[in-house]
Amino acid sequence: VAFRTGTFRPLAVSDARLTEGFWGDRQDLNDTAIIPHAAEWMTKLDWVRNFEDAASGLPYSHRGREFADSEVYKIIEAISWEIARGRTDHADLLDRLISSVLAAQEPDGYLHTLFGRAWQRPRYSDFQWGHELYCFGHFLQAAVAHHRATGDERMLRGARALADHVCVMFAPGGLDRVCGHAEIELGLAELWRETGDRRYLDQASVFIERRGTGTIPLHEFGRAFWQDDLKVRDADVLRGHAVRALYLAAGAADVAAETGDDELRSALERQWRQTVARRTYLTGGMGSHHMDEAFGEDFVLPPDRSYCETCAGVASVMFSWRLLLATGEAKYADLIERTLFNVVATSPSNDGHAFFYANTLHQRVTHSLPSLNEDGVVIRGGAAGRQAWFEVSCCPPNVARTLASLGAYVVTESDHAIQIQQFVAGVFQTSSATVRISTDYPRSGTVEIEVDAVTPGTAVHIRIPAWADGARLRRTGDETAPPAGDYALVADVQDGERITLVLPMQPRLSRADDRVDAVRGSLAVERGPEVLALESVDLPEGWPLDEVALASGAAPVERDGSVWVDVVRLPQTDDADWPYARPETTAATRVPASVSLVRYHDWAERGPSTMRVWIPVSGT
Amino acid sequence: VAFRTGTFRPLAVSDARLTEGFWGDRQDLNDTAIIPHAAEWMTKLDWVRNFEDAASGLPYSHRGREFADSEVYKIIEAISWEIARGRTDHADLLDRLISSVLAAQEPDGYLHTLFGRAWQRPRYSDFQWGHELYCFGHFLQAAVAHHRATGDERMLRGARALADHVCVMFAPGGLDRVCGHAEIELGLAELWRETGDRRYLDQASVFIERRGTGTIPLHEFGRAFWQDDLKVRDADVLRGHAVRALYLAAGAADVAAETGDDELRSALERQWRQTVARRTYLTGGMGSHHMDEAFGEDFVLPPDRSYCETCAGVASVMFSWRLLLATGEAKYADLIERTLFNVVATSPSNDGHAFFYANTLHQRVTHSLPSLNEDGVVIRGGAAGRQAWFEVSCCPPNVARTLASLGAYVVTESDHAIQIQQFVAGVFQTSSATVRISTDYPRSGTVEIEVDAVTPGTAVHIRIPAWADGARLRRTGDETAPPAGDYALVADVQDGERITLVLPMQPRLSRADDRVDAVRGSLAVERGPEVLALESVDLPEGWPLDEVALASGAAPVERDGSVWVDVVRLPQTDDADWPYARPETTAATRVPASVSLVRYHDWAERGPSTMRVWIPVSGT
Repeated sequence: VAFRTGTFRPLAVSDARLTEGFWGDRQDLNDTAIIPHAAEWMTKLDWVRNFEDAASGLPYSHRGREFADSEVYKIIEAISWEIARGRTDHADLLDRLISSVLAAQEPDGYLHTLFGRAWQRPRYSDFQWGHELYCFGHFLQAAVAHHRATGDERMLRGARALADHVCVMFAPGGLDRVCGHAEIELGLAELWRETGDRRYLDQASVFIERRGTGTIPLHEFGRAFWQDDLKVRDADVLRGHAVRALYLAAGAADVAAETGDDELRSALERQWRQTVARRTYLTGGMGSHHMDEAFGEDFVLPPDRSYCETCAGVASVMFSWRLLLATGEAKYADLIERTLFNVVATSPSNDGHAFFYANTLHQRVTHSLPSLNEDGVVIRGGAAGRQAWFEVSCCPPNVARTLASLGAYVVTESDHAIQIQQFVAGVFQTSSATVRISTDYPRSGTVEIEVDAVTPGTAVHIRIPAWADGARLRRTGDETAPPAGDYALVADVQDGERITLVLPMQPRLSRADDRVDAVRGSLAVERGPEVLALESVDLPEGWPLDEVALASGAAPVERDGSVWVDVVRLPQTDDADWPYARPETTAATRVPASVSLVRYHDWAERGPSTMRVWIPVSGT
Repeated sequence: VAFRTGTFRPLAVSDARLTEGFWGDRQDLNDTAIIPHAAEWMTKLDWVRNFEDAASGLPYSHRGREFADSEVYKIIEAISWEIARGRTDHADLLDRLISSVLAAQEPDGYLHTLFGRAWQRPRYSDFQWGHELYCFGHFLQAAVAHHRATGDERMLRGARALADHVCVMFAPGGLDRVCGHAEIELGLAELWRETGDRRYLDQASVFIERRGTGTIPLHEFGRAFWQDDLKVRDADVLRGHAVRALYLAAGAADVAAETGDDELRSALERQWRQTVARRTYLTGGMGSHHMDEAFGEDFVLPPDRSYCETCAGVASVMFSWRLLLATGEAKYADLIERTLFNVVATSPSNDGHAFFYANTLHQRVTHSLPSLNEDGVVIRGGAAGRQAWFEVSCCPPNVARTLASLGAYVVTESDHAIQIQQFVAGVFQTSSATVRISTDYPRSGTVEIEVDAVTPGTAVHIRIPAWADGARLRRTGDETAPPAGDYALVADVQDGERITLVLPMQPRLSRADDRVDAVRGSLAVERGPEVLALESVDLPEGWPLDEVALASGAAPVERDGSVWVDVVRLPQTDDADWPYARPETTAATRVPASVSLVRYHDWAERGPSTMRVWIPVSGT
């Protein structure tokens, strides 16, 4: 995103280099493991070959789902960001992928490997599930990334041709339709930013305004599934399919900001507020329905049936990021941080070769083998456990492009000021200073910020997370206690000045609003931006997870680099024939123990296990 | 069901006449409203015409889903039971329906209006979703009902031809397949009972043994969805699609009992026990997944996302009934009673013109208009609110056939003994006595049982429900306090003797096993066999349901024919931006009130409302 308007301006990916630590290590993992892994799978499954076959002009059998093209585009985007940040290992692969893709583009700009050839379904014959415009949107995003990273015009030319085709076909007076899955809006807005061609932004706006007018055929999931029940500017909360809703909101935020449409922007701020207040998990995860991968009603947030699709986490970051840039409010960066640590970082395994598609907050039974198809990939994305690949494999490449571009989320700038949005070690080149952040956050809460080559009169704004009551901020000869949930202002920084932020990293208990019925009588433990969890492998031998409760009044403590809580085991008697009984019939023996918690993003790395984020409190 | 073996023997529907009261009134509603309503809809939507068109031999466009035929069969079955109990108002309709159906039968016995004609998909080309054998099973059940009720051979001849076809096609060495939806097993077992032709029972047994061998193609829902993951005799618990699982279990119980297969019977008893102990709602409802209409994992019983399909309730009654007859254990009749009152009676509206498809235990928002298709019927069965009809309209005719045959569930007999299984007013002709039950149960707990024309030496066994601690049983000159959860024995009843049972009807609180996490810190209220609920229309003006909690230590009391509980309102402050906070941050003002509860089966009859069965206890 290279906002032309708004309060904060982002840095280019090439101006933000992570050096080490939590996110730097993950960027390296992305480069060495995740990207090659994803590229291998989409090659092995012939999703790349779809383009090559399409270019041949001969009939072929399309492999993969309707949106298989988009996975290739997302990996092109990821590798482009890798190049932008100086990693060129996959440059040859990138060129091959782009050549394959571009060879398949039709003379009129259209590009989709599943539609429009004589032996295929016609173009634009399935707006519900066809994902044509969705794939186009990813193509445009990838092309812009590639152009920004390399200056190479090839893919950008393809993007212009494709976008020109869309502008002709879907202009007012043309096809009065929208795609079942929002995404084209984001691509068009980005292409406008890259090319300055206003038609693209206008067409994005047309799609945003057309959504909610009932152009998508009725389906049992209801119109809200595709956000086609209400106009974007009339809605109060996100609803329906979570990824669709969040991509749409992010695209609408682009349009609102870039066109100065304050009504639309304010509608999106309202939707963000209500969605976060009532439809978001402690992890930042969104979407509680398995059936339609959708947001539930307010406060329907069951931990054991949480869906929290990884892509919804990525999309939530995209939406919050745009509102952050537009409004300058720290709460958007807070949610980004929460979601990055607890959804985006949770999906990939430590070795980068397996991924959670859904991110449950409560695993009741150890993973059983999921259903695999003849290609050896998991049929249903909601399957438990991290898996190498999925029939619907949107999540791994989405993680890849997010990690590759993560540097851009750390520091922003505005007139005469620099904002430290995230505490990530790296070097960041702004227009008014070079910022070096040194920290092993979130292991420690100490963040050193060194500012060099400063334009005189520049201020540094440092986000103090909402959970960070008691933060301390030191600059030469001065220490302050900035309030949580806003930016701390360091005025007039001096060239070479070091600023030290110390965030309070004591583990803390959290309860949920009473209306989140599914976790009544339970508490969760958080430490800094990380949600912690109780995983069965950390329990005393023979203790089943579902017999463990927090000791009443227990406070989590940090010891030996881990967080520990006092628990009790409440052994279940043999199953009653009927699991409901009069209230008085309970008097279990309590066996105490102290157990260590796992960081949620690290769970399921030590063999088969069960896990819960929300831990019942004994006696309730 | 007319078991040939087993501990208890059922009465014919014609020997059991309900007279009045809770179930008698519903049988009348079924006759005057539900059956005509269902018949009108399936005529209006051309599901009946499918048969007429098929008979014409000309190409036609099939209307409705793959299982539309079966809805017509279920209504034939329902009207047949109506005739058996002496109601002949729909006899002409019945004849017309049977004539239409039989005219469509192929010369080789095959009968399905969606498959096998030149312009249709081939027979047996879709075992996952085709529902061919499923429809056959309903045909067989309907034919047996019709033959029993009328003695007319027409439909039974059709059933034999169809079953003969099945026995040829699916015998060992023939098509090694099972239907995606169990049901044929029940029909074949019943047809064996009616005709004595052992091939039908053997073929039912073949289907039972073939299930679980992986003959159904893989699907994202996994093999357990169709119970194709494990052989029936190897499973420990019901899993997958709830109606499929329960129909299969009921059919397997038929086979186990009638073939004397004790291993299979014991496997089914084990599955019933574990399913009831870990996967059943307080209402008796089964199935907690919307996505696949399936059982969840153990203790995944969220009230707000309960599915509890009405047909799963009907199927649960069928399964329990077969185990009751086979084993003679009262717990099966207990679950039947709970399920009849709280699932089967909940589905139809008071006027018999609308039905719950899913039976939620927690309605968070007042019903919004569901998605209707061009026929004006509800697209998704899980839609909130009672609806006139559904695209998938299995539930209304299933309720109809259950209510019409309900008389048969009340009294059973064994050698020298009669069992009172349910407390339903009516006259029941057994082989050793005429039993008259007079009661307005469950309004009152008093049940009068009068026994006439008694064969000397006959005993009466009366089920004392598991919840009925403190029941009193009186016969001439004798009063006893029979233990709950078993049959009370009244030996050697005298001709004309009156037995009085007084059941304790004080409302009682129930809590759930700790592992049912979704209702931790909440209690439910039950009275007799009925689950009660808190419905928003009974709250003080302006109180939202989600701000109401049970007063700590409150005990429900009965007053003016209703059950009342003390509650407090805990007003929510304006939404926090984030619904999770440190535990100490709560200190709401409590406003007390006393509110009346609604019987769960009566909820949603007084306009738009919200509702909950499990009520949070204040202070947890």
